[in-house]
Amino acid sequence: MSQIAPLTVDDDELVLLTDLYQLTMTQAYWKEGMAKPATFSLFFRRLPPERRFMLACGQQYAAERVSRLRFTDRILERLAEVDHLETAFLDWLANWRFEGDIWTLPEGTPVFANEPLLEVDAPIAQAQLLESLIMNLVQLETVLASKAVRLVMAARGRPVVDFGLRRMHGVDAAVRGVRAYRAAGLAGTSNVLGGLRHDLALNGTMAHSYVLAHDSEREAFRAFARHYPGTTLLVDTHDTLEGVKTVIELMRDEPGLSIDAIRLDSGDLGELAHGARALLDAAGHDRIRIVASSGLDEHGIASLLTNGAPIDAFGVGTQLGVAADAPVIDLSYKLVEYAGTPRIKHSTGKVNLPGRKQVFRRHDAHGHYIGDTIAGRDEHVDGATPLLHPCVVRGEAAPEAMAAAQAARERVVEALAHLPASLRRLAHGESDYPITLSEALERQTRGG
Amino acid sequence: MSQIAPLTVDDDELVLLTDLYQLTMTQAYWKEGMAKPATFSLFFRRLPPERRFMLACGQQYAAERVSRLRFTDRILERLAEVDHLETAFLDWLANWRFEGDIWTLPEGTPVFANEPLLEVDAPIAQAQLLESLIMNLVQLETVLASKAVRLVMAARGRPVVDFGLRRMHGVDAAVRGVRAYRAAGLAGTSNVLGGLRHDLALNGTMAHSYVLAHDSEREAFRAFARHYPGTTLLVDTHDTLEGVKTVIELMRDEPGLSIDAIRLDSGDLGELAHGARALLDAAGHDRIRIVASSGLDEHGIASLLTNGAPIDAFGVGTQLGVAADAPVIDLSYKLVEYAGTPRIKHSTGKVNLPGRKQVFRRHDAHGHYIGDTIAGRDEHVDGATPLLHPCVVRGEAAPEAMAAAQAARERVVEALAHLPASLRRLAHGESDYPITLSEALERQTRGG
Repeated sequence: MSQIAPLTVDDDELVLLTDLYQLTMTQAYWKEGMAKPATFSLFFRRLPPERRFMLACGQQYAAERVSRLRFTDRILERLAEVDHLETAFLDWLANWRFEGDIWTLPEGTPVFANEPLLEVDAPIAQAQLLESLIMNLVQLETVLASKAVRLVMAARGRPVVDFGLRRMHGVDAAVRGVRAYRAAGLAGTSNVLGGLRHDLALNGTMAHSYVLAHDSEREAFRAFARHYPGTTLLVDTHDTLEGVKTVIELMRDEPGLSIDAIRLDSGDLGELAHGARALLDAAGHDRIRIVASSGLDEHGIASLLTNGAPIDAFGVGTQLGVAADAPVIDLSYKLVEYAGTPRIKHSTGKVNLPGRKQVFRRHDAHGHYIGDTIAGRDEHVDGATPLLHPCVVRGEAAPEAMAAAQAARERVVEALAHLPASLRRLAHGESDYPITLSEALERQTRGG
Repeated sequence: MSQIAPLTVDDDELVLLTDLYQLTMTQAYWKEGMAKPATFSLFFRRLPPERRFMLACGQQYAAERVSRLRFTDRILERLAEVDHLETAFLDWLANWRFEGDIWTLPEGTPVFANEPLLEVDAPIAQAQLLESLIMNLVQLETVLASKAVRLVMAARGRPVVDFGLRRMHGVDAAVRGVRAYRAAGLAGTSNVLGGLRHDLALNGTMAHSYVLAHDSEREAFRAFARHYPGTTLLVDTHDTLEGVKTVIELMRDEPGLSIDAIRLDSGDLGELAHGARALLDAAGHDRIRIVASSGLDEHGIASLLTNGAPIDAFGVGTQLGVAADAPVIDLSYKLVEYAGTPRIKHSTGKVNLPGRKQVFRRHDAHGHYIGDTIAGRDEHVDGATPLLHPCVVRGEAAPEAMAAAQAARERVVEALAHLPASLRRLAHGESDYPITLSEALERQTRGG
């Protein structure tokens, strides 16, 4: 190992981002000649108490990527360092390909406990190897999209912008996070790479350091506004309302300056927004918008708006960037069928639903969701829409599924318009949204 | 944008992993000809209530990496898409280099509120650009190392192994996380890429799917133990103590099999460990170790051991992988000096300590920590050790600092032996470890 390890991960290294037991189990299947078809199902057993639904996100992107995994020579050289892996097995890995199918919910679909986000149908030695990577990739986007959509709901149409890059868990989280935020409906991001790569508008204002590096706040405001017509000025470096007065004086003294917004970043945001609005309006600047940031989450945003705070846009960092109240979901990737026979683990009360599955969602005449049925893959449920679709077929990504992934943002807008009210509430608590098993699945789960 | 965006981030793209305002502020500094030396300080204002200290980690690795950032042609082409960035500025970025100094705590140093983990001394347009990336990189490793070291303390010498890849926030978190776990003293990881890259032993057992794919648990155990002499068998797929009995029968029937350990992964781990131990001992297998996993955190481990659970090693996933109880620290990267003058922001009670700083740690005759003093960079504190050292000097990584980063694991062992008892407690609560400001810094902070 070189003294300084590289920091980024190359595309061909993703196949190594696996738990050791995936490799040792795969070698065992290979040695035992176990190559029959298996189905693994990706789901979570319960919603975090802080969520009434999760927004399934990243599963089509992940499926496309894992379907292209290969063990290159460089990778096999590194695996040769790993104990217990035999040379003949590594030779076999050189020709390893994913040749199976992956069914997924379309990205941006609200999903509930025990509903598969994704199912893999493939020879067991192919499906098993994907486990850790799929879970890692899907969890990130699902956790972040599920948090971001709550901010969108709380802001009631006002733009919410991601300021969280610095608080996120590393490089990949920061970049793919923006993909999830875009799906969830955030209006923009401060994160340049994330925004460019995943097509979300870039936003930025200024930092306190810019103000402090100038001889005065007024000097800093003037310089920035001259450079960037239509800019947003950060007014709280010293005293927020004094900062607002400085903006007003500056605009009076230099009528050519174009300032679109001010940003409040500390203190009692509701009170300061009222104070700032009053000062701006009294000076005839009712067109200047107020952006607020500083420790906000969906409850903070909802409470500000309920109390009538005249805030036009929100920047959210820390609480969003790690989904601080629910940073993890207990995703499982479980074998549910092998060699045509449903499999089931039920030690200590944990029950997995056996067999290949489909999720059916029922809608009323207005398109509102009225309940889900989890069923066998080949069942039909009258008047309900099957949600899982093939995303990778015989090892190849289906173009229409990839296009569907790109439409996640539109799918979320549609979903928010049709979720029952009990699911759109931000407070903790159970919803009354009914999730049932089909009769056949119920019977099979009981072992009948 | 291609329909499917790439998933991994290349080395040269790291320079784009920044907030837009770093670029617009830098352009503003460039337009204004502001190129005087600045110092930015990286610190946090308060410990999370769940932590009595943080383990500073990642700052030397990050410093080395950011000192090598360049704007390549490919990157500048992408920046040309960003509004407000001028062609002449992009030309200037083509020659942008970091030419300053970065001072850091050695990795693996316990750190407290308001103590700099890192300070950057450089022309303001260089130092400002590093902000978001440094914060993103350092936070991840510091948050994860600070959680992992608590598991190590709780396990009282027993090995703790990382099983968290699938729950971590993406690819980079999973890989650099292992670097932090190694520093903190974990014994191994299941994560193949992380372990290979960052030199931590690889561990793995088997999954429930392996048992379920076989005709019986006994068949699965026999196959796995034949393939992997000295293996660990997962005994809870159906019923834990029945699984242990199956292991014992198998060893009786096939005396040649070598099984080193069993793993419990559900249920009441303490009770099951007692039951399993009794069964194994009665059969003469007192050499077979018991590994426990399943929702463990430091409190769970401490409670099991306090109650005498005969567990020899722990696997920890979910709670570790996102540091679920404290997934974020409120790191700040603040301008503290510009053009030779200390700068200070103090709106709404947040006070930043002005000027370049040094942290001095005092030890008693046995090497135990007895208190810290935060002082100006050039102060001297009698009988105390200065903790910040130059890590990057005039743009070049100092080889001795990079070597020091590699020794983080040994530094943590040393630190754990010398932390006062109040800091080693796992329960929430304040410690009485004294952190003071030097007289000179105290005066300057008050504006005297």
